[in-house]
Amino acid sequence: MSGHVTILTGGVGGAKLVLGLCHAIPAGSVTAIVNTGDDFQHLGLSVSPDIDTLLYTLSGKANAAQGWGREAESWGFMSAVRSLGGEDWFQLGDGDLALHVLRSQRRRQGDPLSTIIADFASAWGIAAQVLPMTDDVVATKVETDEGMLDFQYYFVRRRCEPIVRSIRFEGATTARPGPGVIEAISNPDCEAVLIAPSNPFLSVDPILAVPGIREALAGSRAPVIAVSPIVGGKAVKGPTAKMMKELGLETSAAAVAVHYAGVIDAMLVDERDPPQDLPIPSARVDTLMTTLDDRIRVARAALGLARAVRS
Amino acid sequence: MSGHVTILTGGVGGAKLVLGLCHAIPAGSVTAIVNTGDDFQHLGLSVSPDIDTLLYTLSGKANAAQGWGREAESWGFMSAVRSLGGEDWFQLGDGDLALHVLRSQRRRQGDPLSTIIADFASAWGIAAQVLPMTDDVVATKVETDEGMLDFQYYFVRRRCEPIVRSIRFEGATTARPGPGVIEAISNPDCEAVLIAPSNPFLSVDPILAVPGIREALAGSRAPVIAVSPIVGGKAVKGPTAKMMKELGLETSAAAVAVHYAGVIDAMLVDERDPPQDLPIPSARVDTLMTTLDDRIRVARAALGLARAVRS
Repeated sequence: MSGHVTILTGGVGGAKLVLGLCHAIPAGSVTAIVNTGDDFQHLGLSVSPDIDTLLYTLSGKANAAQGWGREAESWGFMSAVRSLGGEDWFQLGDGDLALHVLRSQRRRQGDPLSTIIADFASAWGIAAQVLPMTDDVVATKVETDEGMLDFQYYFVRRRCEPIVRSIRFEGATTARPGPGVIEAISNPDCEAVLIAPSNPFLSVDPILAVPGIREALAGSRAPVIAVSPIVGGKAVKGPTAKMMKELGLETSAAAVAVHYAGVIDAMLVDERDPPQDLPIPSARVDTLMTTLDDRIRVARAALGLARAVRS
Repeated sequence: MSGHVTILTGGVGGAKLVLGLCHAIPAGSVTAIVNTGDDFQHLGLSVSPDIDTLLYTLSGKANAAQGWGREAESWGFMSAVRSLGGEDWFQLGDGDLALHVLRSQRRRQGDPLSTIIADFASAWGIAAQVLPMTDDVVATKVETDEGMLDFQYYFVRRRCEPIVRSIRFEGATTARPGPGVIEAISNPDCEAVLIAPSNPFLSVDPILAVPGIREALAGSRAPVIAVSPIVGGKAVKGPTAKMMKELGLETSAAAVAVHYAGVIDAMLVDERDPPQDLPIPSARVDTLMTTLDDRIRVARAALGLARAVRS
């Protein structure tokens, strides 16, 4: 595969596949379209969790043990915030703050998120293109048995405990795809579009909710391949399985494939899952991405499936 | 002295005397009116260097060796800012950032600086009243041989190297004294007003430039006592002596006394200085404030001089 590969991604799990992809093919040929529905204002700062996770992962700064934030992070800021009675339910590490402070400053000066992220990625020597799904504000809201919750409130403060009834993406109907997003999907040199094994409802759906992106995927010449987020009937991490149950869905690759109907052309399914009838072509591999080699292997398997679909 | 004492103060040197004063009399009887002419926006954050120095000093968090900032500070933020190509000429420590981030957030929400600082002081158990000279924006500008410079640019970035021609306080003519400032000077239970040995031109003049403060000092029933910033013909720290030369003044307590003419009733002069003709009453003591005991001793000497002037 000599051309470009585009990947839709959310947080930690998605970042692992993007990293694998950047080793499977030249990183300069990879474009990641990243969920910004998790973005929020905290302590007056613009925080973009999924984008930052990807920047940390691709630049070798991610904290692998913790699963979020920076390696070798310090916490002097949070400790001082606590001493001042400030909000401390969302952890902002000292190094991590640099992204939020510089992003906030430039956002206030009128710079679009996409430009800021391109500059961050460039400063950190990231060869892949990292594109926010939109430069407009889209905010994921989770309707639960405790009422409508802001995403980070549901996800971090309430640790995904409330029962989910539905999810909406505030601002999505008027949001425009970020610069380069539609091109990355529709360009003739795009050979495959991957959907990372991120949470379909919280990480991928916000991207699909930006008008134009779903249509571009449906019309793309390149095959669209989802990597199933389900491994042995469970989610590797995060609330995907719990949410699927709460939304009345079976926790299976098939249910995810149905959810992505009209968008994807094939799905990479974990070999631990029971064989199941999928309405689209599929391949079965070990999709667990513990080591870098795992990540490269899963990226290659997804690209192989794309090749098979194309031929 | 059983009543209140009010002190006008700038940065590090002034904070030492305020701390001594808080040990010489009950800290709850001390009101510090603090210069905000050094305040500026940096990386989109509201930074108030003199107020923060005082908060750190009075709460036991000041970095004594360094002379500014917090004890046991870490620098993960600055390091990450540098990696992103951000401005790094003004050092913001990780713990220090908490004040700037929380202050910026509340300023944007419309809270006045005085309320924010009162909350910070309360959270840190500071019994003295810490009052910004004004809640309005006053910005010290230094006219130099390199042109008109913002204060922090002159002070930190250019290390006070440019030759000073004059100083002005942008916004001062329309600024209003902060809540409690005039009361702290004019109240009948105010027994003395001290002017800390801070830089007269950069730290005290901005306070005097806020309309109403100079008049309140002139009309105050309580004696106004300046502690000379000159020790043995030099400034203890900072550019006071260099600036006095550049402004065509003698580097002496007498020149400072003349500068404060109409405002002060007496001056505490360092015993190392040559005896000199002062137009006002004075006393001579060792004004160097290395240890806490020194600071208490100098505070007591200033209060003693106030008592002598009153009787």
